Amino acid sequence: MKILIDAMGGDNAPGEIVKGALMAHSEFGCDIVIVGSGERILQILHEEGISEIPKGMEIVNASQVVEMDDSPATVTRDKPDSSMIQALNLLAKGEGDAIVSAGNTGALLSASTLIVKRIKGIRRASLAPIIPTVKGNALLIDGGANVDCNPEYLLQFAYMGAFCAKRVLGMESPRVGLLNIGGESNKGDELRVETYKLLEHESAGGRLNFVGNIEGRDVVFGAADVIVADGFSGNVFLKTLEGMGLFFADHLKAMFSKNMMSKLAYLAIKPSVLDLKKILDYNETGGAPLLGVGRPVVKAHGSSKAYTIRSAVKQAINLAETRLVSEIIDNIDFMKVNE
Amino acid sequence: MKILIDAMGGDNAPGEIVKGALMAHSEFGCDIVIVGSGERILQILHEEGISEIPKGMEIVNASQVVEMDDSPATVTRDKPDSSMIQALNLLAKGEGDAIVSAGNTGALLSASTLIVKRIKGIRRASLAPIIPTVKGNALLIDGGANVDCNPEYLLQFAYMGAFCAKRVLGMESPRVGLLNIGGESNKGDELRVETYKLLEHESAGGRLNFVGNIEGRDVVFGAADVIVADGFSGNVFLKTLEGMGLFFADHLKAMFSKNMMSKLAYLAIKPSVLDLKKILDYNETGGAPLLGVGRPVVKAHGSSKAYTIRSAVKQAINLAETRLVSEIIDNIDFMKVNE
Repeated sequence: MKILIDAMGGDNAPGEIVKGALMAHSEFGCDIVIVGSGERILQILHEEGISEIPKGMEIVNASQVVEMDDSPATVTRDKPDSSMIQALNLLAKGEGDAIVSAGNTGALLSASTLIVKRIKGIRRASLAPIIPTVKGNALLIDGGANVDCNPEYLLQFAYMGAFCAKRVLGMESPRVGLLNIGGESNKGDELRVETYKLLEHESAGGRLNFVGNIEGRDVVFGAADVIVADGFSGNVFLKTLEGMGLFFADHLKAMFSKNMMSKLAYLAIKPSVLDLKKILDYNETGGAPLLGVGRPVVKAHGSSKAYTIRSAVKQAINLAETRLVSEIIDNIDFMKVNE
Repeated sequence: MKILIDAMGGDNAPGEIVKGALMAHSEFGCDIVIVGSGERILQILHEEGISEIPKGMEIVNASQVVEMDDSPATVTRDKPDSSMIQALNLLAKGEGDAIVSAGNTGALLSASTLIVKRIKGIRRASLAPIIPTVKGNALLIDGGANVDCNPEYLLQFAYMGAFCAKRVLGMESPRVGLLNIGGESNKGDELRVETYKLLEHESAGGRLNFVGNIEGRDVVFGAADVIVADGFSGNVFLKTLEGMGLFFADHLKAMFSKNMMSKLAYLAIKPSVLDLKKILDYNETGGAPLLGVGRPVVKAHGSSKAYTIRSAVKQAINLAETRLVSEIIDNIDFMKVNE
């Protein structure tokens, strides 16, 4: 197993990315190819007290960096020697089993589609971030890759999300819910009403476990394992969750650090606070797989620190080992809408 | 000032509604007309130890009740003698200054549009729930009334929201943000890109204080006073906030009631917990004004208890006293898009 890592993407690149790569390498024993500024990567290894590149680790030099404000549409052409594009080229050539990048999301999406290519029959590649809930993890698809969707896209998201939840999150029969603004089948806009019918049909055929519409308030309580949404409302949902998580974490911190009494109070209920923090913590899950392209691509959060990168590598290994791409290819006939 | 109250709508009707009406009557000194089953209302007054209808309070008997599963499209025709429809008829005839209902939202929306009528030039009436943030209250428009929107609707929502924030929330120059999935002006779908241009134009003209796109995670930190959204993503956003609020409240409760130590811990930091609960609490704000119809309509939360109804009545009084409807009428020329 060989994982390609874009060392130059994200707020804390390349330092935290390289450290994360080291963690993953020693913890999971996989081969790692770090793509980025060779000089800076070597310097970080040096700072970490590593004088020789560890066995099974490789550095590929890239002279350019994809920045956050680079245009996704032209990045492949404009920055062919960037770490992101180079790593994707290696992936496409089979010189790695999966890629992890914390860089510009739009750029990663469009470059992955251009270089790694979509699976034949898949209309849109889609980001599937993992959402912590009180009952464990759920998967949101689409988390923001496609703002304009049609029912067929959403049907494909449902299938890809279900396969991913099964193979990567280890669920036997993931419950698929449609993010909507009410429970009844006629709720929402035309996109939701039409998608509901498609999902119900696939569920009746035993190929999906569709549990109906779910609302934003039900997700955190674990109402579904796969949450199907268009990229716009999916992203609104995701960022609202994140914002509330941050807000609550801030408030808890302020609450317990106020004075001596509150610090003692913290000690008294520390385990419960840590439980809660785990639910609010995105560092554990690592990143969002990009589903629908021909090889595993994992988008790590832009603010990823070393441990997040390590977790994203774990996800990438899972995606490659469980051969998710093959399952999508094998089921592509069910994922089409005849017009 | 005379407020009409639909006694039969909501999960806790009519008991909590009538009690809320009594609270509002004694606290704000306004006249109240309670519309609903006369027999049941009298019985509740009796249980509250009130043998005579208080001065300034009136009961109007209604023999029907709008249920949660009644069709919004036909409720005006199907249940003409329901408390909701009767109260709206009284409002339209000027026999009351505003109405409060905790009943079927869709029914209230469509019946208000039919009976009270939209303001001339307003394309869609819109729900504007109040969102607690760390910096005080903000207003979301649309909270779920219109799943399909065009840029003109959103422009009108922005104006109506800003007027409402100014008059009802007492803000001098409310900051208007467009709920989107990124900060830059070209983010989101076509609806967002076009609406951004319209809002920017109005802001340049000094008629709106548009602060640009805002993301779901920024709202709770107080990034805008008025959050403009289509009814679908607005409702997803709203329910996600609600869900996270409920989840935190549950978790806090469990955290502090675990054992003797955690109960002591609670005592040590009680004020901070209460601060937090206030931000998570929807009972304080009362309800969501329905903006764009010719007279003030307030939709109280379906799970409203007496205190929520009391707060919704306060909002209704504010809306009527500050003559929000007149401000919308006076500015209608700015709220049009020339095709």
